[in-house]
Amino acid sequence: MRAYQFEDDFAPESLRLVERPDPIPGERDIVLRMRAVAVNYRDLAIMRGEYHTRVSPPLVPLSDGVGEVVHVGPAVTRFRVGDLACPTYLPLWIDGPLTLDRIARRLGGPDDGVLTELMRLSEHEAVRAPDHLDPAEAATLPVSGVTTWHSLFELDRLRPDETILVQGSGGVSTIAIQLAAAAGARVIAVTRTNRYTDRLRDLGADHVLTTDSSPDWPSRVAAHSGGGVDVAVNTAGGPTLTPTIAATRMGGRVHLVGYAAGRRAELDVFTAIQHATTIHLARGGNRTDFESLVKTVEHHRIRPAVDRTFPLDQLHDAFDHLAHGGHLGKVIITPTF
Amino acid sequence: MRAYQFEDDFAPESLRLVERPDPIPGERDIVLRMRAVAVNYRDLAIMRGEYHTRVSPPLVPLSDGVGEVVHVGPAVTRFRVGDLACPTYLPLWIDGPLTLDRIARRLGGPDDGVLTELMRLSEHEAVRAPDHLDPAEAATLPVSGVTTWHSLFELDRLRPDETILVQGSGGVSTIAIQLAAAAGARVIAVTRTNRYTDRLRDLGADHVLTTDSSPDWPSRVAAHSGGGVDVAVNTAGGPTLTPTIAATRMGGRVHLVGYAAGRRAELDVFTAIQHATTIHLARGGNRTDFESLVKTVEHHRIRPAVDRTFPLDQLHDAFDHLAHGGHLGKVIITPTF
Amino acid sequence: MRAYQFEDDFAPESLRLVERPDPIPGERDIVLRMRAVAVNYRDLAIMRGEYHTRVSPPLVPLSDGVGEVVHVGPAVTRFRVGDLACPTYLPLWIDGPLTLDRIARRLGGPDDGVLTELMRLSEHEAVRAPDHLDPAEAATLPVSGVTTWHSLFELDRLRPDETILVQGSGGVSTIAIQLAAAAGARVIAVTRTNRYTDRLRDLGADHVLTTDSSPDWPSRVAAHSGGGVDVAVNTAGGPTLTPTIAATRMGGRVHLVGYAAGRRAELDVFTAIQHATTIHLARGGNRTDFESLVKTVEHHRIRPAVDRTFPLDQLHDAFDHLAHGGHLGKVIITPTF
Amino acid sequence: MRAYQFEDDFAPESLRLVERPDPIPGERDIVLRMRAVAVNYRDLAIMRGEYHTRVSPPLVPLSDGVGEVVHVGPAVTRFRVGDLACPTYLPLWIDGPLTLDRIARRLGGPDDGVLTELMRLSEHEAVRAPDHLDPAEAATLPVSGVTTWHSLFELDRLRPDETILVQGSGGVSTIAIQLAAAAGARVIAVTRTNRYTDRLRDLGADHVLTTDSSPDWPSRVAAHSGGGVDVAVNTAGGPTLTPTIAATRMGGRVHLVGYAAGRRAELDVFTAIQHATTIHLARGGNRTDFESLVKTVEHHRIRPAVDRTFPLDQLHDAFDHLAHGGHLGKVIITPTF
Repeated sequence: MRAYQFEDDFAPESLRLVERPDPIPGERDIVLRMRAVAVNYRDLAIMRGEYHTRVSPPLVPLSDGVGEVVHVGPAVTRFRVGDLACPTYLPLWIDGPLTLDRIARRLGGPDDGVLTELMRLSEHEAVRAPDHLDPAEAATLPVSGVTTWHSLFELDRLRPDETILVQGSGGVSTIAIQLAAAAGARVIAVTRTNRYTDRLRDLGADHVLTTDSSPDWPSRVAAHSGGGVDVAVNTAGGPTLTPTIAATRMGGRVHLVGYAAGRRAELDVFTAIQHATTIHLARGGNRTDFESLVKTVEHHRIRPAVDRTFPLDQLHDAFDHLAHGGHLGKVIITPTF
Repeated sequence: MRAYQFEDDFAPESLRLVERPDPIPGERDIVLRMRAVAVNYRDLAIMRGEYHTRVSPPLVPLSDGVGEVVHVGPAVTRFRVGDLACPTYLPLWIDGPLTLDRIARRLGGPDDGVLTELMRLSEHEAVRAPDHLDPAEAATLPVSGVTTWHSLFELDRLRPDETILVQGSGGVSTIAIQLAAAAGARVIAVTRTNRYTDRLRDLGADHVLTTDSSPDWPSRVAAHSGGGVDVAVNTAGGPTLTPTIAATRMGGRVHLVGYAAGRRAELDVFTAIQHATTIHLARGGNRTDFESLVKTVEHHRIRPAVDRTFPLDQLHDAFDHLAHGGHLGKVIITPTF
Repeated sequence: MRAYQFEDDFAPESLRLVERPDPIPGERDIVLRMRAVAVNYRDLAIMRGEYHTRVSPPLVPLSDGVGEVVHVGPAVTRFRVGDLACPTYLPLWIDGPLTLDRIARRLGGPDDGVLTELMRLSEHEAVRAPDHLDPAEAATLPVSGVTTWHSLFELDRLRPDETILVQGSGGVSTIAIQLAAAAGARVIAVTRTNRYTDRLRDLGADHVLTTDSSPDWPSRVAAHSGGGVDVAVNTAGGPTLTPTIAATRMGGRVHLVGYAAGRRAELDVFTAIQHATTIHLARGGNRTDFESLVKTVEHHRIRPAVDRTFPLDQLHDAFDHLAHGGHLGKVIITPTF
Repeated sequence: MRAYQFEDDFAPESLRLVERPDPIPGERDIVLRMRAVAVNYRDLAIMRGEYHTRVSPPLVPLSDGVGEVVHVGPAVTRFRVGDLACPTYLPLWIDGPLTLDRIARRLGGPDDGVLTELMRLSEHEAVRAPDHLDPAEAATLPVSGVTTWHSLFELDRLRPDETILVQGSGGVSTIAIQLAAAAGARVIAVTRTNRYTDRLRDLGADHVLTTDSSPDWPSRVAAHSGGGVDVAVNTAGGPTLTPTIAATRMGGRVHLVGYAAGRRAELDVFTAIQHATTIHLARGGNRTDFESLVKTVEHHRIRPAVDRTFPLDQLHDAFDHLAHGGHLGKVIITPTF
């Protein structure tokens, strides 16, 4: 079988198509033929050698993906051949709180990821994809979807009387809008331009504001939500954290789930004390979160947003497209090896 | 003005129409002209002398109602003349946990209730009714609606990946179905006959079972929800508590919000330990709960179920109708004095 | 090696000493030489054929015990030879919420228990005993200790400003007093007679009441705690549940962790609604709970109460002693096979 | 009567002793003769014109204090003449979540504070001081004590199996150590020098580290707590936030309750995501928190740390002492007017 891997170091040109031995599954293993994968900022950071924990080549990249089950070991009970299944990003974190032991393995670095023709894994390290999704849509779930679920419904408890602010239009932002709407909350979306206003409404936003036309957007969001939103999802970090806090109500909760605008977030402590803010930073979610997400996506017939799908030989264009920003939803690669 | 009141003792025949002096509002008071009221089992228990805490005549009965604001004191800021407003059942409980002080006053006993032409109250003791509701619908909210909200979203935290069982078709059951559906949960409704199957689906039930055709309904509910529902709402008590627990998953939560089937609930401790159950018993909710309920009802355009509306001179028919059971939603009286 | 087991059916006389093959440990297994075991009401119920779920002979009984590690497999990292270790009652429940899968195995029924000379188990199915405890004390922890921990600190969140009522003097009651005192709460203990007043104070009770001298104990407890305790631990069930609720404050929490006074608990719904009570019924706890318990027991140098220790050949006297009631702490057997 | 107030602007020299009319109490009012007050960083910020929300002269400064009740209105039930009572810093926040309405009034700015001979207030705006404390000790509670309580036991739920890191030796740090120890937690204190090692141990720290001798203190704290503390209290902000996060376990909680080291806290998002951190910023606490604090302080006979007590005519020395840092506990002024 074939796979892409970083050979000697981390750089775009080091990512090469290689031949690897076919996986030999054990008794409780399944084998997936990968059908779609998604790229994340984390993958960019790894490729650029800027990632915050140690990873080393050779490494098969990417954390997000879905494949068709093409083999099940004799003791497997969770899957059948033909199922569409997503590997879990943190294979050892089945349930309960996060611990060091439970993140010892992470797909796409330090462990081999999903940019491969075939993938062998324990049946405990995958989740059945929602029935109504195509592979590109299902590939959006393991990282963005699960992290967003864990943030909104495990770390937090979004309620149907609440208003949530979602900033941006990437993979976390779009699924956050969809999940918050499914949970009955009122959703205010804020993006740079009005390019996606209609799409964000279709996903479930009750109100869309653009930062280009409203530089004072935090006070407009606050005005629009009776004094500040209950919950905010910020995927940018950097200088954007304090304005997000300014848009929340007293006692509001902020989920900081990215760092597109800067690895260092500036926190104005006065503003945050004034708003009596709680800030949550999730590191993915567990398999039980993933299963809860699947139930919700199925019950509400949610279709995650896919910005653009690239064929495998345009792999680097996919990375560039993500790096360039301005997309709505996830950037997908369909790996036909 | 006129009002109904129990004169000397508690009995149907002691409930008489009386003339009372018009209310003289203070600076922060409002006056409501009552437009609709709802009857509750509690009102039946009081009328029959079976209520569990001391109340004494003379007493204007009923806790649930809505009126039009016909006067506002000069310092009032929360209401304007013409608003539709619901008195809060527990006027002193604005927020925070329930305390003895905060239930010192309770409308409909020991304090005068809402079966009156005009009602004077502090502006802090009322909540604006949802805009899109007519008076009969708004009158369903203060007791059934608020208690259900408090149970599902304050004592509990119903999530969009969960399944909830709602038993019965009365006022608590119907609003529970509507609120749970608004919160994105999957709803299984269980009633005696198939008379209301379509109506319960319209309110938001994903699945309806009847106890008449399925005496083994707990195991059918469990089968239908992957091993037991996450949450159950039981409004009957008596011998029905243990079967409800049997229909829940391990670690499930049961809300016991009534005693139509018996003041003593039989709790099989083995069954409850086996299911690792938590049982919640709410005593109404606070004003903040009511405001959260109104936000949710408005955002989701929920229209609470009204079984039947009686004119004031058929007051006793309304009580009988409630006592007889088998209704869907609340029993309403439109008090045209 | 030797073990006791029920041979053909469940009855005192069917519990016989048998010879069994020595355990052959796997790579990640440990072998314990059992040093002390404790008897629980559950064991009595099983022996009498009154237990609520199916168990079948042959069965080695008892769930609670501690042994010395006499062998470790080559891949074992959690234990060394010479450690004192407790098998977990629910071996599959490591963490997270309880699920059906996670109680598939339960020591003492349906799975073989701890009344055995040697016991083989995966290293994941045991917890190191607190350093300062002797075997009899450590044997009290797996069921009573862990269930009490799970109740007070996972299902509930006992705080240092709160008052807790603990009824009875058995194994759950005594460790509940000790843990609640360690968590800084004020503790009111209620027992039948004044026989144990001093001992309960030594364990951490701030105040001891006796039901014999105070039949109106619920109102005395309420008076003593500013209107009702925040939390209550009831180990008896039956007719005692409603008086316990009467002793709690509004919004109080009751932990029903036993059924010594009757398998059916009578719940007066009026009283429970009046008190806006939450009732929790735990089914043991998980390994993470056990580890949290050990940390707390070590940090506070807690020594669990042992009522009496029986040698192995007085096994049936130990059962009778438990059945007879009136003990303070656990009934222990030291299994010198 | 006499009081200190900022006359025309905010500056040390504008703080002058003035004569003001004696208070005329209403029906539900009490009058306090102030016995001790404490200074906070907030008071420094206000005096220097650096405070984050608008306050304007004339203003009586200081938020923290205690007085003897010298008059009670005829309708007062919560106090008697002779009681020692603390005004609540946020007089309108009795209970429930923080809202804009509930911080409309704040003692010491924008509302007149406690640096006054006599103080009139509604009986609802004060809490009885713990019985065993002298005025200097009681004056430490309303801001530092209540904020710390709210942080550890309302926003968070510190448990007896947990380890908490407390940085610094000021008023919040010292009461945090005492309350955490009362709640049964293990406490690691970190300060700059070893000057206070013994005192911090006396207050309840199980282990004391100094940053001067251990620049790598975060990894030492992590090593000392099995991989990172569960909870951390940081009173400095600025560049110290990220090292604090580095000392916590995965899923740990950080309470940022000050900004002595800088109004802008630098948050390394990578580090925070790696640790899956939650950061809480409290804005004081409510009256119910204060009452819970008093119960706990009384039950555990906690004596809050007083660094130094200044007489009224050395008022500015007290401010300078606080500004200079390096104190252990609160800086107190005994206002003998």
